[in-house]
Amino acid sequence: MNLREIALLLNGKTEGDEDKEIAGVGKIETAAENEITFISNPLYVKYFKNTKACAVIVSEDFDKGDLRKDITLVRVADPYLSFLKLLDKFEESKTNTLTGISEFSIVGTDSEIGERVYIGNFVSIGSNCKIGADTKIFSSCSIDNNTEIGNNCIIYANVSLYKDTVIGNNVIIHSGTVIGSDGFGFAKQDDGTYNKIPQTGRVVIEDNVEIGSNCSIDRATLGDTRICRGVKLDNMIQIAHNVTIDENTVIASQVGIAGSTKIGKRCMIGGQSGIVGHITICDDVIIGAAVGVPKSIDKPGLYTGYRARPLKETLRMEVGMQNIRKLEDRVKELEKKLYK
Amino acid sequence: MNLREIALLLNGKTEGDEDKEIAGVGKIETAAENEITFISNPLYVKYFKNTKACAVIVSEDFDKGDLRKDITLVRVADPYLSFLKLLDKFEESKTNTLTGISEFSIVGTDSEIGERVYIGNFVSIGSNCKIGADTKIFSSCSIDNNTEIGNNCIIYANVSLYKDTVIGNNVIIHSGTVIGSDGFGFAKQDDGTYNKIPQTGRVVIEDNVEIGSNCSIDRATLGDTRICRGVKLDNMIQIAHNVTIDENTVIASQVGIAGSTKIGKRCMIGGQSGIVGHITICDDVIIGAAVGVPKSIDKPGLYTGYRARPLKETLRMEVGMQNIRKLEDRVKELEKKLYK
Amino acid sequence: MNLREIALLLNGKTEGDEDKEIAGVGKIETAAENEITFISNPLYVKYFKNTKACAVIVSEDFDKGDLRKDITLVRVADPYLSFLKLLDKFEESKTNTLTGISEFSIVGTDSEIGERVYIGNFVSIGSNCKIGADTKIFSSCSIDNNTEIGNNCIIYANVSLYKDTVIGNNVIIHSGTVIGSDGFGFAKQDDGTYNKIPQTGRVVIEDNVEIGSNCSIDRATLGDTRICRGVKLDNMIQIAHNVTIDENTVIASQVGIAGSTKIGKRCMIGGQSGIVGHITICDDVIIGAAVGVPKSIDKPGLYTGYRARPLKETLRMEVGMQNIRKLEDRVKELEKKLYK
Repeated sequence: MNLREIALLLNGKTEGDEDKEIAGVGKIETAAENEITFISNPLYVKYFKNTKACAVIVSEDFDKGDLRKDITLVRVADPYLSFLKLLDKFEESKTNTLTGISEFSIVGTDSEIGERVYIGNFVSIGSNCKIGADTKIFSSCSIDNNTEIGNNCIIYANVSLYKDTVIGNNVIIHSGTVIGSDGFGFAKQDDGTYNKIPQTGRVVIEDNVEIGSNCSIDRATLGDTRICRGVKLDNMIQIAHNVTIDENTVIASQVGIAGSTKIGKRCMIGGQSGIVGHITICDDVIIGAAVGVPKSIDKPGLYTGYRARPLKETLRMEVGMQNIRKLEDRVKELEKKLYK
Repeated sequence: MNLREIALLLNGKTEGDEDKEIAGVGKIETAAENEITFISNPLYVKYFKNTKACAVIVSEDFDKGDLRKDITLVRVADPYLSFLKLLDKFEESKTNTLTGISEFSIVGTDSEIGERVYIGNFVSIGSNCKIGADTKIFSSCSIDNNTEIGNNCIIYANVSLYKDTVIGNNVIIHSGTVIGSDGFGFAKQDDGTYNKIPQTGRVVIEDNVEIGSNCSIDRATLGDTRICRGVKLDNMIQIAHNVTIDENTVIASQVGIAGSTKIGKRCMIGGQSGIVGHITICDDVIIGAAVGVPKSIDKPGLYTGYRARPLKETLRMEVGMQNIRKLEDRVKELEKKLYK
Repeated sequence: MNLREIALLLNGKTEGDEDKEIAGVGKIETAAENEITFISNPLYVKYFKNTKACAVIVSEDFDKGDLRKDITLVRVADPYLSFLKLLDKFEESKTNTLTGISEFSIVGTDSEIGERVYIGNFVSIGSNCKIGADTKIFSSCSIDNNTEIGNNCIIYANVSLYKDTVIGNNVIIHSGTVIGSDGFGFAKQDDGTYNKIPQTGRVVIEDNVEIGSNCSIDRATLGDTRICRGVKLDNMIQIAHNVTIDENTVIASQVGIAGSTKIGKRCMIGGQSGIVGHITICDDVIIGAAVGVPKSIDKPGLYTGYRARPLKETLRMEVGMQNIRKLEDRVKELEKKLYK
């Protein structure tokens, strides 16, 4: 792609040589000579002087001064979004080459495979499965019976989908993630041993969800564990049986959500936080990192602390804790005065 | 199975049409017309009016009033336990169909495979292994040399068992779990680099243990890391080298237990808690969620807080913390009074 | 190996029958009759009386008294280091037997495989990869296109390496670990949904690194996520996109490090700690277990607490918290005195 084509794609204007061929995109500090980069944050303007990149995407009012007349500028309304668009374009051209079903994979009886599907080596697909068009399944995935995967999904290597799992369209699941393992349910017996409570429900993942690597999402005891449209999960997240996570909620890595809890729409949950079972978090709640949520939250807002509290309370308490020593000194003074 | 047969199985009495054929079990809110459901918790009585299920398991004294004469009742002593029994029955009939060794699996030399074993696609079993009767191993598992697995186990897809691992009877291991990886042991050198301390012990999993998905259980430096009879581990649990977890202890997800620690019998450990190395937790200890345990515990009871303390102390401290502001105000009043 | 050869290897002196053949090494409490053990810590001297081992590595001044004339002693300068050396020797002889490329593995076009490489069953290696000499790759690993692995590495079963990953020499990666999955980056749209930000960078693992089981290391958005020479990572560690971990830093299990953070050289980070994104931790910092690090640290030393603070401050605060109740009582006394 040359810079004329790039400007067209980004709805921008070039300033300088627009015949240069661009091989890829890079960060302004490390881009190569045949790459294009961008400046969005003013903090990065200082790198402009020395970048090796031959072209830079900048805002419409960017002032390059007298410097670097060798660099072609591409002026756009929003350099960051334009850059992402371009990144996508370059990436797309690489992954679209994957098609075909490896002869070293196995598809069970009565399973339907859509058009243009890619199935890598040593993938095992059970019976009665449906794999939608344009979906890509990387090597060593295990997909058990009666599983449905929609169109245009990417399932990376070594993912395990237990039987009966339902996955929508445009879903991405990263390596090592396990979906549909048994929920953690046992009935204590009089002799102190535990009997397993059968976990016969399933997991449903709706459209446009992305799930990071090494996550665990357990099947419901009965009914569904459900990850709704547009939810984004980072790596190593634990979702217990019968949990529901509503649309467009975003969860950072190493969070754990215990059984039967319901998380609302558009929530954001920080890394390593934990949410107990059988509670409800309403829409638009933001939970900080490493927060424990011991009970339901019914007001939107920011919650932080070892036990989740509205941010204001946490700060007040933190200040209070830091004041304890001072308080002790003041009480000591009072005592001296009074008891002497 | 019709309702007459179900009543017989559950030692219950039918009330209504007992010829109906039941296809499965469901939750009272979502069960289908050919399914049976149950009411155990009085909170669920309200769903009785509108459930689609054609039969409901209820207690002996359940009062259905004038409502829903179309529903057949099955009256039993304990509706919840009866329901679990039935769930088991339906589940059993589905998984018992798995037998046979995939021609796309590999078994090494001198390995013994018991009767009625199921081995899925792309399973690799090393040399000198023993797999007991009725055990099921799902696709893409890797089982290294000299591993023993007992009778009637289920090893789900993508599990990794390192060499020398010993697994008892009736053990369930979920996908992504790794057993027998090297313990984390290094000797610091004078130049700041680390030398690996060889980890030559093994992991022993006793009978009736269940281990969730994506757990890591490290082999001992020397001797055994041991998970005793009846222990139940949730997902993403980290067990370091030389740890022992004694009988019938139950651990929730994302817990970490550091090296050489011994956990007693019948303990319960809440999610995301962490236990330091080289300590001993006595029998019958309950540890809350997200608790850090920095030293041995030698009295049974409930321990909570960022640093584990008996529950009473934690609560007293929490109340104290909330009182700091009030305390400050009271001191201010005293000061005003005294210094004015 | 007999005891004469062992003494030679360890630069030690035998005392007793040096013709005994030694089959392996064991702990003093549990060693078998044909094994050698050691005493380094005085706490273990008490086991000398009853050990089954036929030989014991001891310090030069160890006093065996009149006991156990049947045991051969091997006297050395440092019994622990000597024991590790011997352990290594026995271990080496076992794993060195692995060579050859399984006929049930697949290597893509234009990939180079070095000499004496071992590739296990059902390993999938993409195109344009390089695997260095003496490297061992265990079963069901998935290694995507354009990946480079150096010499003398061990990649255990079920590891997933995404495309473009670079791994140095003498690197060990345990089962279930995922390297190169997409960083967690999304741009929020006006309608509340998220657009994926393409993650087009890679992961670079330098020489002599060991990575535990079930870790997740994400590729950079642009540029590299980098694990430098000699770093040792325990199990279940989450490393987000664009993180750098500098040389000889050691991290315990279940730690999470958020995006773009830089960790210095020779740091030690305790289990379950979390470090927020976009900060810098300087060299020689020690972070306790279950610590949250909310901002950059620019002074070496020990940091602890729910929010990382220098140890002294944490202790002072803990003491303060424990004093709150006492303080309340003192204020109550003052009030009685003053208001009555």
